[in-house]
Amino acid sequence: MYSNNIRIVLVHPTHPGNIGGAARAMKNMGLTNMRLVAPIRFPDAEASARATGAEDVLVAARVHPGLDQALEGCSLVMGTSARARSIAWPSLDPQACAEKLVKHAAPAALLFGRERTGLTNAELDRCHYMVSIPVNPDFPSLNLAGAVQIMAYEIFLAGANAVSAPAQAMGREDQPLASHEDLQSLYHHLEQVLVQIAFLDPANPRKLMRRLMRLFNRAQLDKNELNILRGILTAVQRRLTNNT
Amino acid sequence: MYSNNIRIVLVHPTHPGNIGGAARAMKNMGLTNMRLVAPIRFPDAEASARATGAEDVLVAARVHPGLDQALEGCSLVMGTSARARSIAWPSLDPQACAEKLVKHAAPAALLFGRERTGLTNAELDRCHYMVSIPVNPDFPSLNLAGAVQIMAYEIFLAGANAVSAPAQAMGREDQPLASHEDLQSLYHHLEQVLVQIAFLDPANPRKLMRRLMRLFNRAQLDKNELNILRGILTAVQRRLTNNT
Repeated sequence: MYSNNIRIVLVHPTHPGNIGGAARAMKNMGLTNMRLVAPIRFPDAEASARATGAEDVLVAARVHPGLDQALEGCSLVMGTSARARSIAWPSLDPQACAEKLVKHAAPAALLFGRERTGLTNAELDRCHYMVSIPVNPDFPSLNLAGAVQIMAYEIFLAGANAVSAPAQAMGREDQPLASHEDLQSLYHHLEQVLVQIAFLDPANPRKLMRRLMRLFNRAQLDKNELNILRGILTAVQRRLTNNT
Repeated sequence: MYSNNIRIVLVHPTHPGNIGGAARAMKNMGLTNMRLVAPIRFPDAEASARATGAEDVLVAARVHPGLDQALEGCSLVMGTSARARSIAWPSLDPQACAEKLVKHAAPAALLFGRERTGLTNAELDRCHYMVSIPVNPDFPSLNLAGAVQIMAYEIFLAGANAVSAPAQAMGREDQPLASHEDLQSLYHHLEQVLVQIAFLDPANPRKLMRRLMRLFNRAQLDKNELNILRGILTAVQRRLTNNT
């Protein structure tokens, strides 16, 4: 499974809250393999507090004195950056990076640098690719946990796409859509009622029915909704008859 | 510019740190229009601390007592959710949602619910679409600032892709879309008429209004269509009064 192969490596993180936030962001997206390179404060209560529910990721996180130890066994290394570099490394966008990580059937690492200064050039030298997260050029400094959140999300999407996309239950409930005949009956019924309530003048219909049909066609009614609308029309007619 | 039109609305946020984190995530991705509905603690030092560099977004954030005030003037409303609902709202993935928001050249809102419980059904009733952020089903509870980070990132990507797309605020036929207030008035009127014709029993409303709101939200009514529907309701009421 790709998710065990992908290490999220935080290099010299300063704020323990960000470590906790990163752990939670990882677990939300199905990643659990966290590596910390010489964190300033860890373990720490603030890290645990921000992890809320992902403490297991923190507990399992391995702490390394240097980057090379964290990368042991990795055959693909990616370094994140939110800024352009003067010497360009081969650069990927987050989607392309996530695809490569998910397809890589062996240990791989995705590096995140210090909060203030990111990865050093020496650290980027360990990377096969640099990943640039698109940001507002006027305010490019992403929060560390936020950067992990975006990359973990892209990895989750790439992983979902990689497993032959099962049918997504996006439809409205399990109702079949109204048929053409159902809709025609609804429109006849609606027209009849509009005439009865004197809203539609058959001598001068203008485009009224066309507008209404277009509206309901656009909504793609299901059978249940169609039955509700038919029910309302019948209720109006019943009241008109009772009152006359 | 799309970024001014898109309101990021946090509904009843509990932790001020998340408000600050959301502000920073927004600014990183070029968004600045934040609305807070009845935040528990705001302004707050923790919010400012987490914003680090995006304090201007916090200062400009508007605080509203209720959701309807925050949505005033919006003709497109999206609600985020990380879980499946029993009554399905029309659901979009983050990319499709971001595209719609960026293309909508009029005020639009993207809602994020409470940290623990998300948006209520009554809040989702205000939404044209629900947005589901893909997550690990075993740990689906996204951090609020993390959810904002993901959606702001997708909006930034969609904005970069859409630079040359023509403005399309208008509905079909050059008609502006119905506003949030217009729709709420329509739904009140509709409910009133359904009670009058004895189709809706106020003592046992079931999910009737919810289904009807969902149907009309899905159709994204323009102002002309909305006026037609209001006219039909008034015509029904006039007939009922004349006959009694």
